Amino acid sequence: MGNTFGRVFRITTWGESHGGAVGVVVDGCPPRIPITPEEIQVELDRRRPGQSLITSQRRETDTVQILSGVFEGQTLGTPVSMMVTNQDARSQDYSEMQNAYRPSHADFTYDAKFGIRDYRGGGRTSARETIGRVAGGTIARKLLHLRHGVEIVAYVQQIYNLEARVDPRHVTRALVEENPVRCPDSEMARQMYELIDQARRDGDSVGGIIECVIRHAPPGLGCPVFDRLEADLAKAMLSLPATKGFEIGSGFSGVLMKGSEHNDLFFASEGRIRTRTNFSGGVQGGISNGEDILFRVAFKPTATILRPQETVTPQGESTVLKPRGRHDPCVVPRAVTIVEAMAALVLADHDLRNQAIRNPAGPAA
Amino acid sequence: MGNTFGRVFRITTWGESHGGAVGVVVDGCPPRIPITPEEIQVELDRRRPGQSLITSQRRETDTVQILSGVFEGQTLGTPVSMMVTNQDARSQDYSEMQNAYRPSHADFTYDAKFGIRDYRGGGRTSARETIGRVAGGTIARKLLHLRHGVEIVAYVQQIYNLEARVDPRHVTRALVEENPVRCPDSEMARQMYELIDQARRDGDSVGGIIECVIRHAPPGLGCPVFDRLEADLAKAMLSLPATKGFEIGSGFSGVLMKGSEHNDLFFASEGRIRTRTNFSGGVQGGISNGEDILFRVAFKPTATILRPQETVTPQGESTVLKPRGRHDPCVVPRAVTIVEAMAALVLADHDLRNQAIRNPAGPAA
Amino acid sequence: MGNTFGRVFRITTWGESHGGAVGVVVDGCPPRIPITPEEIQVELDRRRPGQSLITSQRRETDTVQILSGVFEGQTLGTPVSMMVTNQDARSQDYSEMQNAYRPSHADFTYDAKFGIRDYRGGGRTSARETIGRVAGGTIARKLLHLRHGVEIVAYVQQIYNLEARVDPRHVTRALVEENPVRCPDSEMARQMYELIDQARRDGDSVGGIIECVIRHAPPGLGCPVFDRLEADLAKAMLSLPATKGFEIGSGFSGVLMKGSEHNDLFFASEGRIRTRTNFSGGVQGGISNGEDILFRVAFKPTATILRPQETVTPQGESTVLKPRGRHDPCVVPRAVTIVEAMAALVLADHDLRNQAIRNPAGPAA
Amino acid sequence: MGNTFGRVFRITTWGESHGGAVGVVVDGCPPRIPITPEEIQVELDRRRPGQSLITSQRRETDTVQILSGVFEGQTLGTPVSMMVTNQDARSQDYSEMQNAYRPSHADFTYDAKFGIRDYRGGGRTSARETIGRVAGGTIARKLLHLRHGVEIVAYVQQIYNLEARVDPRHVTRALVEENPVRCPDSEMARQMYELIDQARRDGDSVGGIIECVIRHAPPGLGCPVFDRLEADLAKAMLSLPATKGFEIGSGFSGVLMKGSEHNDLFFASEGRIRTRTNFSGGVQGGISNGEDILFRVAFKPTATILRPQETVTPQGESTVLKPRGRHDPCVVPRAVTIVEAMAALVLADHDLRNQAIRNPAGPAA
Repeated sequence: MGNTFGRVFRITTWGESHGGAVGVVVDGCPPRIPITPEEIQVELDRRRPGQSLITSQRRETDTVQILSGVFEGQTLGTPVSMMVTNQDARSQDYSEMQNAYRPSHADFTYDAKFGIRDYRGGGRTSARETIGRVAGGTIARKLLHLRHGVEIVAYVQQIYNLEARVDPRHVTRALVEENPVRCPDSEMARQMYELIDQARRDGDSVGGIIECVIRHAPPGLGCPVFDRLEADLAKAMLSLPATKGFEIGSGFSGVLMKGSEHNDLFFASEGRIRTRTNFSGGVQGGISNGEDILFRVAFKPTATILRPQETVTPQGESTVLKPRGRHDPCVVPRAVTIVEAMAALVLADHDLRNQAIRNPAGPAA
Repeated sequence: MGNTFGRVFRITTWGESHGGAVGVVVDGCPPRIPITPEEIQVELDRRRPGQSLITSQRRETDTVQILSGVFEGQTLGTPVSMMVTNQDARSQDYSEMQNAYRPSHADFTYDAKFGIRDYRGGGRTSARETIGRVAGGTIARKLLHLRHGVEIVAYVQQIYNLEARVDPRHVTRALVEENPVRCPDSEMARQMYELIDQARRDGDSVGGIIECVIRHAPPGLGCPVFDRLEADLAKAMLSLPATKGFEIGSGFSGVLMKGSEHNDLFFASEGRIRTRTNFSGGVQGGISNGEDILFRVAFKPTATILRPQETVTPQGESTVLKPRGRHDPCVVPRAVTIVEAMAALVLADHDLRNQAIRNPAGPAA
Repeated sequence: MGNTFGRVFRITTWGESHGGAVGVVVDGCPPRIPITPEEIQVELDRRRPGQSLITSQRRETDTVQILSGVFEGQTLGTPVSMMVTNQDARSQDYSEMQNAYRPSHADFTYDAKFGIRDYRGGGRTSARETIGRVAGGTIARKLLHLRHGVEIVAYVQQIYNLEARVDPRHVTRALVEENPVRCPDSEMARQMYELIDQARRDGDSVGGIIECVIRHAPPGLGCPVFDRLEADLAKAMLSLPATKGFEIGSGFSGVLMKGSEHNDLFFASEGRIRTRTNFSGGVQGGISNGEDILFRVAFKPTATILRPQETVTPQGESTVLKPRGRHDPCVVPRAVTIVEAMAALVLADHDLRNQAIRNPAGPAA
Repeated sequence: MGNTFGRVFRITTWGESHGGAVGVVVDGCPPRIPITPEEIQVELDRRRPGQSLITSQRRETDTVQILSGVFEGQTLGTPVSMMVTNQDARSQDYSEMQNAYRPSHADFTYDAKFGIRDYRGGGRTSARETIGRVAGGTIARKLLHLRHGVEIVAYVQQIYNLEARVDPRHVTRALVEENPVRCPDSEMARQMYELIDQARRDGDSVGGIIECVIRHAPPGLGCPVFDRLEADLAKAMLSLPATKGFEIGSGFSGVLMKGSEHNDLFFASEGRIRTRTNFSGGVQGGISNGEDILFRVAFKPTATILRPQETVTPQGESTVLKPRGRHDPCVVPRAVTIVEAMAALVLADHDLRNQAIRNPAGPAA
């Protein structure tokens, strides 16, 4: 269980990092959404390993195949099955994992839960699982764009102790894509690149913070109780490998404000009801209010490092895990598109849920 | 939709703040769990308004009735329906809400979503909705305690700019209950009380941070992908009114560490596999590892303040919302038991899910 | 688990036959559907025991209370909680049930599943559980009527070996309500009444067949694979106490036809595409085609009879169950409104699901 | 939506009849269940077209690939993704379907629902979709066999007007597989074969009834209310293409019995509680009682026939559909393994759900 996300617009991902393939089934997508493999490939390429020196050098083209649910360039309203084959699995690099629990990886917890583990790799907790999320999320994104003109832009706001200055109201995807770090503050991006590259040379790793802004989301997305928009976004983000925190709007720093400062006052402008400030982060009472949705996600430093580490065997004997294989000194730049995809999935699901309860038969509001 | 939480151990809450009653249906609870109304009442009393000068003075006894699913002191395995009647609803206090959107409340977003709103109160986004969560969560907690000896202790760690010093490994519920702020650092609790009381006298409000530790959770809770334990905890916490952030283990501060510092090294002790540090916060690869689960939740300052605020009418006309009615200068002390209840619901659900896939028929691990 | 029905328009029922109350929570209902307690009471009265000499004499007024989700006569889009208190529970009549498994009741299977049982009555398998279904189904019915003018008429088509002649195309609710058997063939209804009354005097019971016709359902309800409209109707009907069979359109008798006879040929009439025959029963490929939806449900004779029966104790000792208490010689007339309610729930759910995937942004069909 | 079946043990199928492939994702399967592609292939071969003269001559090897979730011959507890490529799709045979609605097929209802249709074939309502069900069901079956020794045997009991005499208590799979009709009454099987072959030569089609017996199912499977075992079986069966009816135990013929005849009296035998008769069909109060589970499914004659048929175009113009392409004069023999697979999916799901609520911590029963 736990491999399906969403209630109406739903994705189910499958595949181990070292099995034959990984994939996704998208169910609940409306019919007649135009979508091409190329649109999906663009996002998969942003997620792909090997795209620059500061990412994992695993060689995968990650070429997507659409196996069902799309006909003559449009969705059919039936499940869209998409698949990417694993090519550069190099199981031999990981054989040591059978006999030593890698620190802060899922090896031990997998054994505790399942009593069995594909010791050739990270299994389902591998970043390869996110391929299906990106593929499915790209369709969600297309849907949101066609219906409401929704724009979703995520970017690297912090790497280790380097913080970028970015104005979320005006940041664009083009700016984000200008450098391999995906930080729209170009000077800081350069420093971040150096820092990640140094970590790589040290056999160490670093984490960071991704900020994400969603523009033109219609008011009304999200539900008042358990399925608040921020709750579903939080779940989406904390379901990504290596994440440790989520905040929306004022977030943790909102604690340092009084109610009289934090409340976002309403005013009317051009026929719309707006707020003067946006400490709410675009969500009030769990429901979007039409302002920019703004949230941040904390990523820990990657667990795989190229240094010897003390650990134990599955039998509980002390051992030392020797550094070996490839590693990703910082997953944050590659995670930008994954954060966007997950955000799109959350919003598309709530958009369809809203359509379901729209009431043409009821009395006028 | 969105009024049900959990997959196997599930609660569905119902009720508006100013309707006749609020309640919950608990489905999926195993049979033969001993439970009494008194055990549930204890937690409802911790959540209740009017318990001290620094909480809302709405007068509610919040007396729980168990209407089904319990027979001779034990659960039957059928739905447990519980209800609390609303007594002190004072609709007249809130009549102004019909004609002015309260800033940072859900009035506007409700209208945007539903086209109708019970303007007598906060409807489903009211804190009264959490009564059902606490009632259901108390059964989940009993279950976890009986099966594994799980202990869940939440406490106020910060109010506005006042930070308590608390060692999560040793904090007890008795310590938490020693003062009305529910902060186990008694000196800081005194200062926090003053600060909240000053906010009350100023007609203003403050927020804070609740920290929660879960001890003796068995290894293996949580799933590798979407239903990671931290993802479900994040959703649970961000589904609470007034929350803006969630972090687990090292959280946002983990960004400032290198992988070589952040990795939790394994060692064996008394036949168990343990970690020397716990930056993971008790969860690795989305699955509990047997260490203390430790997370933090940020609460913004309450939106209801007793000061005039600029706003608009539903028709988009400028207006001023006059201060009126009762208000809760800080919800954080009352939210402690709600955080615990939601944590219990998440863990109980995953515990039952684990039981479902336990495989007596399979080959030995 | 298993106490919730529906995916978008969902009901969760709760309550034991001999607990304090029974009820339902309706979630996913669109806002601004006008609904009154009186509309719900009309249907509950059709289901109520004691409505004629040939039904159980348990005295219950079954007066519904709406506890949430309705404001000023309209739904709010939030959960509608409804409750009926149990009044004439007479636990003493059933005390023998603690020590003897009643044949063809759920006493034994409950113990096998749960290891505990409210031995004062039938628990959740009691017909009282269906109160919540009828209450929730009445809202679903209102929704379907307002949106599409859907009419749902069920009636008794057979009792024991007495078969009525009814033309499903023209039968009306008024005709059905003309006699206590709810059979629109008045001469046969008279004979059925006699037969049921004779069974009552014999301390025995009889079953029968309910036929149900749904008119003006829009084309497009139902999904191609697991959630075919007929599959969801079959589940809904077989989830009712005492049912043993379901058939749609030609049903079991369709086996005796060739494809060349069974195929429903299309023709165009007044701008609509129609079929000349309706062996499909209004559903093709799992999806409604706009013709009348027509199905039949078989009810076995009630298990409670007033005759001594051989059985065993929970410990496996032979014993004789003595006849005692009240009994319902035939549940079929009371089940008519329950069948209609379940049908309404299935259709309303699919209607909302269709709205969810309607695609204003896509290319023209 | 509607492409997922089950709550804990779940399958999601995907794929159109004329797309690149069809497949299934199995989620919720416990770890360490031994399974091989060969075991799955055996069942797929029983479902495959072209296996005898009386089935469709579409040439497909239906060779299954397991893409994830199985490692070293055992399930991992993660999603098992399985796929079969479409080889003999011959789209040209079906081009006429673009311009004429085939009677009693889903062409019209698809257009009504989705506004788009893969006119090259039956899309998701094609029998090819059932490949995923059989693949997933075979794992469910293995699980049930390993845990409880469950045996599931389905067989053809009737074709058109030819009824076989079969004792469900003793029928074996070997007997069923002795002839291509899959009817264990060999003399009747011979006549059925002739009848189907005559229908084939006439360009016509016939339907029939499949009976299914499940032995050694443990008592306790199924839930008291919506998810009764018979309700879930009914849904499973009516979700299969071409089905029109379902009955369990006495079924429709139970209507002709009195309660005093129909009640299954309990007795004790060898430490087990048994019933003397089995009109209940192995299920009481929605829960299995340990007796044989026995149900029947009605299949209409196939809609594809090789005769000219009157119909309309999508624009509502009258037209004649000319006979063309391949056809299956009777799907019933091939459906035997599909019925078994769906039954296995229902039982495995309830078996895991039972495990979830088993309560080691509760007081003794």
